[in-house]
Amino acid sequence: VIDSLGLSIPIIQAPMAGAGGMALAQAVHAAGGLGSLPCAILSNDDFESTLKTLNGASNAPFNVNFFTHTAKPDDAAAQKRWRSALRSAYDAKGLDSSIDAPSVNRTPFSEYHCEQIEKHPPAVVSFHFGLPEASLIKRVKAVGCQVWSTATTVAEARWLEDHGVDAIIAQGSEAGGHRGLFLDPLTGDEQTSDDIGLIAYQVGTLSLVPQIVDAVSVPVIAAGGIADGRGMAAAMMLGASAVQIGTAYLFSKEATITAMHRQALWTGSAEKTALTNVFSGKPARSAVNDVMRSYGPMSTEVPPFPTAAAALGPLKAAAEAQSSGDYSSLWSGQSAGLAAALVLKHGQADNPPSAQDLTQWIAQDAQAAIAAVAKHS
Amino acid sequence: VIDSLGLSIPIIQAPMAGAGGMALAQAVHAAGGLGSLPCAILSNDDFESTLKTLNGASNAPFNVNFFTHTAKPDDAAAQKRWRSALRSAYDAKGLDSSIDAPSVNRTPFSEYHCEQIEKHPPAVVSFHFGLPEASLIKRVKAVGCQVWSTATTVAEARWLEDHGVDAIIAQGSEAGGHRGLFLDPLTGDEQTSDDIGLIAYQVGTLSLVPQIVDAVSVPVIAAGGIADGRGMAAAMMLGASAVQIGTAYLFSKEATITAMHRQALWTGSAEKTALTNVFSGKPARSAVNDVMRSYGPMSTEVPPFPTAAAALGPLKAAAEAQSSGDYSSLWSGQSAGLAAALVLKHGQADNPPSAQDLTQWIAQDAQAAIAAVAKHS
Repeated sequence: VIDSLGLSIPIIQAPMAGAGGMALAQAVHAAGGLGSLPCAILSNDDFESTLKTLNGASNAPFNVNFFTHTAKPDDAAAQKRWRSALRSAYDAKGLDSSIDAPSVNRTPFSEYHCEQIEKHPPAVVSFHFGLPEASLIKRVKAVGCQVWSTATTVAEARWLEDHGVDAIIAQGSEAGGHRGLFLDPLTGDEQTSDDIGLIAYQVGTLSLVPQIVDAVSVPVIAAGGIADGRGMAAAMMLGASAVQIGTAYLFSKEATITAMHRQALWTGSAEKTALTNVFSGKPARSAVNDVMRSYGPMSTEVPPFPTAAAALGPLKAAAEAQSSGDYSSLWSGQSAGLAAALVLKHGQADNPPSAQDLTQWIAQDAQAAIAAVAKHS
Repeated sequence: VIDSLGLSIPIIQAPMAGAGGMALAQAVHAAGGLGSLPCAILSNDDFESTLKTLNGASNAPFNVNFFTHTAKPDDAAAQKRWRSALRSAYDAKGLDSSIDAPSVNRTPFSEYHCEQIEKHPPAVVSFHFGLPEASLIKRVKAVGCQVWSTATTVAEARWLEDHGVDAIIAQGSEAGGHRGLFLDPLTGDEQTSDDIGLIAYQVGTLSLVPQIVDAVSVPVIAAGGIADGRGMAAAMMLGASAVQIGTAYLFSKEATITAMHRQALWTGSAEKTALTNVFSGKPARSAVNDVMRSYGPMSTEVPPFPTAAAALGPLKAAAEAQSSGDYSSLWSGQSAGLAAALVLKHGQADNPPSAQDLTQWIAQDAQAAIAAVAKHS
């Protein structure tokens, strides 16, 4: 399945909403990896132009990624509770916590997206938080797209295989950004509660990947904590058919992140990221900042995904205007330090490398790690 | 340093208090790995006879392991609060929650232990939760013992190297049993609080090992989630000098665990373990059972380590008398499923293999995994 994409390097660039678009995907593609376009926060116009650009690119393979959460109406009482918890932060910035903040747009995959994909089918359509309804999946597959989705547990992997996915992204707990979890780890039912205890169950990549490989017959893509050649080589040992890399690409010149975010990645360390729900309502890994320290990392006061982001909006805007990332999601996996070391090794700390170079460095270093260990064993 | 032990297989058997003693350590030694003796819950007599037995074994290398927590006096108010939280469980079992339960003995490394080690020095003395005071470390090293300790963060690894350890066990979040954490991940100070948010920061093995390898110059032993040849091969790619394996040995005939514990390991899965503080007061990974579901997995009501275990004692005894592990710590890493698969592959589900066989199977499968990937790359 993954072979059919004709990649010369089995690296999938992780789709990262807001952090990288066409330039990043094309740079990874140029190296021989698979570029991914995050579509969860695109307007309809931007989505259509993205698909047309991809199809114009001589049918080169790309991955188009969506969230599949159930959109929830704003819950005024929940919003009020969260804003009232945040009141001292609002006061400190001289902001009025009683004014409504605009809600945040994270669109789940829909009939509309499906129609556009039928017109301009990409090679891969991938999903986060499970899958859309079966009729939409069927239509996406009917026009020749591969369907991928993310599993954070063995049970989710089995569920995804049963629902027809062509490949599974095994997302270990090291990964930055949103956990793709959609089934309760204990009951196996759809995960709907906001039980903050869920983070005690998250499975590390080294443990998750081989257990998913053993449980399903579709190819498994390892994700979470892979940011250099050693991690890629390790994932191959675990039985992964490819690796998905996110955080390392945030060090590339094509990443569209703020200076504050870049700074946090460079100065962070493995243990200074945490799973937090304060930014969106769902657990996601971010470099630790003031809002996580003060109100989280996990909070029972946070409204459900994706509506939680609204209340932080004014605080984020005020902080960023003063060059502070104190209220911004600073998505980061636990291996940002490995990516930083890789960039330093190539002397490009002050001159961000292209994602094309990063892809090639990681693949070369993986080969070297495998050869070195094989020689001594 | 690890080479000087003369192991033919770079596998360290994890010391597991209560779950394996001399027979387990000797079986791993017989395979060419390093056997470990957990001493945190041994009486003085048992400790002395353990050391004498080891020294009698023609100076074969063994690892003797201790906890280094600061012993805390029982806090009557905290005990009362926890017992009152547990009252409905006591009532359901017809037990009186007002009767004092005996406190639980987990002895930190002491002057006494140091004296005994000076008389009968083992090859390696390893510690969990940091290190004992410098004067004791100095004496242990003076009689030729290697000193090892566990790091769960890069900062802890640097601290341990600065304090003179000969090797570092990098314990990823997948590991079963107690997290070795001793420094607050954010402040770098000694971790003294019982902030349950700490579990949001725990680092996966795939991410932790290479970052510690880059940060220190002593050998790094990878621990957490390694239960078969694939995990061992992956750890070697990450730069580990050896691996430490715990949960897989709980499937051996030498493991001294209850039938309930064995059952939980066989029927569990990666996502059905959690980090919990309900058993001891410190976060540790266990297969999920009733007490974790009802009162945890992390609870703010739990008294500090190691005094928390007392209140669960009567519940545990009553449940175990009915063949139930509902109130027992069922320590398990996230890769119990991989160990189960390994035992099944060798047709020994009903006839537990020796730890010697397990050690050899894992080492052979690691070689095979490395050779297979090297061939295709």
